[in-house]
Amino acid sequence: MNIQGIEYTELVERFGTPLYVYDGDVLLRTLSALSGALHPALEAFFSLKSNPNISVFATLLEGGARAEVSSLVELRTALLAGAEARDIIFLGPGKSDDELAACLEAGVYAIVAESFDEVDRIDRLAGERGVRQRVLLRINPAFTVRGSRLTMGGRPLQFGIDEALVLAAGDLSSRWRNAEPAGIHVYMGTRILDPDIIGRNTRYILDLADRVAAATGIPLEAVDIGGGLGVAYFDGEEDLDEKRVAECVNPLIEEFARTHPGTRLLMESGRFLTARAGVYVVSVRYVKESMGKWFAVADGGSNHHMAAVGIGSYTKRNFPVALLNRPHDDGAPRPWTITGPLCTPNDTLLKGAVLPPLREGDLLGIARSGAYGPSASPGRFLSHGFPAEVLVRDGAAHLVRSRDLPDDLLRQQHLYARTPAPTSTRDEG
Amino acid sequence: MNIQGIEYTELVERFGTPLYVYDGDVLLRTLSALSGALHPALEAFFSLKSNPNISVFATLLEGGARAEVSSLVELRTALLAGAEARDIIFLGPGKSDDELAACLEAGVYAIVAESFDEVDRIDRLAGERGVRQRVLLRINPAFTVRGSRLTMGGRPLQFGIDEALVLAAGDLSSRWRNAEPAGIHVYMGTRILDPDIIGRNTRYILDLADRVAAATGIPLEAVDIGGGLGVAYFDGEEDLDEKRVAECVNPLIEEFARTHPGTRLLMESGRFLTARAGVYVVSVRYVKESMGKWFAVADGGSNHHMAAVGIGSYTKRNFPVALLNRPHDDGAPRPWTITGPLCTPNDTLLKGAVLPPLREGDLLGIARSGAYGPSASPGRFLSHGFPAEVLVRDGAAHLVRSRDLPDDLLRQQHLYARTPAPTSTRDEG
Repeated sequence: MNIQGIEYTELVERFGTPLYVYDGDVLLRTLSALSGALHPALEAFFSLKSNPNISVFATLLEGGARAEVSSLVELRTALLAGAEARDIIFLGPGKSDDELAACLEAGVYAIVAESFDEVDRIDRLAGERGVRQRVLLRINPAFTVRGSRLTMGGRPLQFGIDEALVLAAGDLSSRWRNAEPAGIHVYMGTRILDPDIIGRNTRYILDLADRVAAATGIPLEAVDIGGGLGVAYFDGEEDLDEKRVAECVNPLIEEFARTHPGTRLLMESGRFLTARAGVYVVSVRYVKESMGKWFAVADGGSNHHMAAVGIGSYTKRNFPVALLNRPHDDGAPRPWTITGPLCTPNDTLLKGAVLPPLREGDLLGIARSGAYGPSASPGRFLSHGFPAEVLVRDGAAHLVRSRDLPDDLLRQQHLYARTPAPTSTRDEG
Repeated sequence: MNIQGIEYTELVERFGTPLYVYDGDVLLRTLSALSGALHPALEAFFSLKSNPNISVFATLLEGGARAEVSSLVELRTALLAGAEARDIIFLGPGKSDDELAACLEAGVYAIVAESFDEVDRIDRLAGERGVRQRVLLRINPAFTVRGSRLTMGGRPLQFGIDEALVLAAGDLSSRWRNAEPAGIHVYMGTRILDPDIIGRNTRYILDLADRVAAATGIPLEAVDIGGGLGVAYFDGEEDLDEKRVAECVNPLIEEFARTHPGTRLLMESGRFLTARAGVYVVSVRYVKESMGKWFAVADGGSNHHMAAVGIGSYTKRNFPVALLNRPHDDGAPRPWTITGPLCTPNDTLLKGAVLPPLREGDLLGIARSGAYGPSASPGRFLSHGFPAEVLVRDGAAHLVRSRDLPDDLLRQQHLYARTPAPTSTRDEG
């Protein structure tokens, strides 16, 4: 199998395994299909948390994406990739003063504030620097639609300000001198695969924006309708169709944009843009039979791809997988358990995956792995380190993250020993 | 609160938060209590996977621990800390040729082989280097006792060679020229809190060792009885009493040692030795009420301590927690949800933890956090990076791992952009 004409075997020869491979064309096509289907007033902000690789974001930036960041390093990544400050928003429930200061210094378009206390803090920090900072109020809505994977809203949460509190807050238009509340942000859930739910969420959020503006007197310079667009990972799931999302959302946006001509409308998207562009490639190190079941032990597993292993899920379901180095028609397929190199039975990438007889050195590609991959996995477990990452653009492969070498894992450790350590000796016994 | 007389507030002033603090005295006392209770013929091998910090291992080494390692970096760590090669064993289901070669070059006491194919590979690599290598055969036993957290044995697994296969293998004493099978290893489960189970496992393993020796003709230079000693994390659990473990295990060891005077007897221990020596210290960044419930958002969470958050567990239970910077009697306690800085409702360190009214800047210490902490957590999630780690010895604190700085997180990333990136500009709008 190949990616843009480059054989995976060739990539593995150059970069080794385990390896994440991102297809830049898929990234751009996915973004373009989404942006093309959605109302032009809706701006797509890429959630760097889904894939913080600087070259992945640089590719999406080329396609017109803006940046939604949640840490100092994500902010720095967005700026290094070339994002304009006016197209960056900063979001997250536990921002540090350093992070807020960096936002103020960069002049990001907006900080999404999770509480009035946080607005106070932004106001103080902005005042100290003699700047004004646009703030979007994140609201924990008194509303929820079932059908997202992690529903937010309608329950007590660490995120945002309860809808009732905002509506009862009185005039907020001039409460702060240097922090300027200028819109709202609402995030209603994640991994949504039903366009109708996205439509109903959007309707609620746009209506809530008007109610908040009316109750508090703040201007609506921007409304962030969140996102939560999912992708299909498992049997029985179907990808969201951008056109059907557009049918549900565009009429609402059209109406809102017409009645609020100066308001920026933001949608966030992470997983939807990147998941399908990534393949996690592992190599089979050992093949074995145990009590009638077949196992292949690969060189990577939950240490690099916890989502595929399904840690935190109630049932083990398989991500799509392909044998990359030779045709699938080589021998009668049978169910395989594909494990990683960790010392726990939980380190199972695939269970009962139907594949042809596997051999040492075979390459397996876990598809749809471009989101919440290495950065969301315990890459230091057993000190194997984080894998290399490669981006393929225009038929050429570029190393976009170097594999951890032993020195990378040891560099920040310091040896404290009360007594001088004895010299290591070769055991001849 | 303090550790060896040093106030936590002082540690935080010096090293910041989030912070892992390890108490070297507790490490040594725990090791000494275990070694002191167990039969002197049983050697304690520390599983570096539970805590790969070089200074944590150096401390345990001072107390007489040997090393059980599972990767190139863990092997290098053990050697750098001063372990003798004859006191190192290497174990893991997916060893690379590089790892095996490093074992041969260091001359480790034994490689634990997970399959006959792996023995073949060790034999070939040892032959290429003109050395001989002791190998322990890891066996997947046809036996299991309920009561461990992750039971191994009695079912198909990626680990070891099925008991029936080993017993039917015929003469193994001279099958290989450079790899020398010289004993067995069995690991029956993890987080065991019932001494009786450890006794029954040990009895089975020692008996199996004799059966394997009889069936295959291999000498018993070493028998590794695994471990799996647990610690209490949650309400209703009780720590293992070393003395009760000794009552169950020592008579078996005594009898085996008497009849096998030349055999080394190994027990592995990771969590049991380190968990109780570690505290994960976070600082409260925001306090908020949502729909009648109280939340404190801390600066670290599942990105550093997935075990405490309970990702992968069916029910959320709380690790023990303490307020570190002031007395607990300051105000009426109430239930708190303590979250981390991630953008997911799952990032919950503690749920319904009864604590006095919390304020911004408060320090919370999650106890029993010395095992499977940062190295087993997705520290790159949201690009916050891995925390600092400090070891306290003889009343003095030593930085044993430096906190990730932005440059540490960006160093290995490479920017590929097809078009030159535009210059970032300050948004004055």
